[in-house]
Amino acid sequence: MTGFPELPRGLFGQSEGIGASFGKLAALPRSQSEPPLGAPLPLSPFQGVSCFLVLQDLYILLETDAGFAIVDQHALHERVVYEKLLAAYRAGNVAVQRLLVPAVVELPPADKDLLLEHVDALRATGLLIADFGGVAVQLEGYPAPLRRPDPEALIGGLVRELREVGDVGEPEALHERLHSRACRSAVMAGDKLADAEIEELLKAAAKLEHPHNCPHGRPTVVSFTTGQLERWFKRRV
Amino acid sequence: MTGFPELPRGLFGQSEGIGASFGKLAALPRSQSEPPLGAPLPLSPFQGVSCFLVLQDLYILLETDAGFAIVDQHALHERVVYEKLLAAYRAGNVAVQRLLVPAVVELPPADKDLLLEHVDALRATGLLIADFGGVAVQLEGYPAPLRRPDPEALIGGLVRELREVGDVGEPEALHERLHSRACRSAVMAGDKLADAEIEELLKAAAKLEHPHNCPHGRPTVVSFTTGQLERWFKRRV
Ligand SMILES: [Zn+2]
Ligand SMILES: [Zn+2]
Repeated sequence: MTGFPELPRGLFGQSEGIGASFGKLAALPRSQSEPPLGAPLPLSPFQGVSCFLVLQDLYILLETDAGFAIVDQHALHERVVYEKLLAAYRAGNVAVQRLLVPAVVELPPADKDLLLEHVDALRATGLLIADFGGVAVQLEGYPAPLRRPDPEALIGGLVRELREVGDVGEPEALHERLHSRACRSAVMAGDKLADAEIEELLKAAAKLEHPHNCPHGRPTVVSFTTGQLERWFKRRV
Repeated sequence: MTGFPELPRGLFGQSEGIGASFGKLAALPRSQSEPPLGAPLPLSPFQGVSCFLVLQDLYILLETDAGFAIVDQHALHERVVYEKLLAAYRAGNVAVQRLLVPAVVELPPADKDLLLEHVDALRATGLLIADFGGVAVQLEGYPAPLRRPDPEALIGGLVRELREVGDVGEPEALHERLHSRACRSAVMAGDKLADAEIEELLKAAAKLEHPHNCPHGRPTVVSFTTGQLERWFKRRV
């Protein structure tokens, strides 16, 4: 296989120019120190986060309107990528990140046949795969929300999905498949994120439909109220 | 009363020149990401803290070798000031912050008499008080670990101590008294500290004999292990 050409990319694979259609995320209003009296509680703990502390390149501690919260960067990023993939698929409008130089991946003939059978279904989810001849396929593009996927791991994962998860047409299979792609593409524990990438993640998280769990049910965020802090320090009984 | 002249001061009242003898705190070694194998667990959660996040000008979140911790800035500062006052008193060597211009405080004649009766005992704890004539006393100096005390509140507190806590010679009374002075002098919830002041607080905290509670038993710090984080996020059962 050949590696991907290094493109300047953000956390969610937005890139300028090469077919990606995810725009810059709009700036959210900053946190106010006091919400107006009687204001409804914010639905998301990610609204208006302005500062954070990163532990072990995995946990992100942040102040929230209600107190503070801790984020698992992998679980949260996975949820964001998953919702983006699902929304784009539903809208029939998956932004594709095309490769300047297609990535050639060799694989066993049976796997190659299986993959080429599903080329059209895969295209609908933003994966552009073509026969390279011999024992190889080439990856020409992938869904823009994925973050710098490793072509060999991506192709291997697709083969596993096709064997295990069933037909791409079934809604259950689709969810499973998008989740597994999101999981493989998300930043991992130990990936060192730049502050700007964390801000980007938190801004995207503020727009999530289901911000509290990753698609498989692991928590993305654990929240603590000011009341809890006061009880820990016996400032309140 | 007259106000104090504004002196350049740190969190613990160290100042150059005017009689204070608390030196600059020595720099502590920075945190290592991995403690050497088999190394004993650090006794204090404040060893080697390098970054923190402040919530509500009260709670300080910090990474520790074992995970993370949350500090109550008032309770911790109170403990630090208390231990400094106690150590200095025991060593018979209380550094005194002298005032360039003594602060004159008026008070009821009975309170003034009570205070002047105890001038020598107060002097041993670093409090320099003299008769100003009329209905006033003057504060000429105070223990250097106190942080910019308000002269009127300080004198008022001393009168209350003398009425309520008993003789300064009794060890119990002394502890109570130093604690109450530390509490009144400590930074409060809502006091906005500069980063350098927080670093100074955490460095001083790393040297505490009893870092976990304020003198009255309120927690100064609540610690969480990496194992706890892993259980919250179901990374470990
Ligand atoms: Zn995952
Ligand atoms: Zn207190």
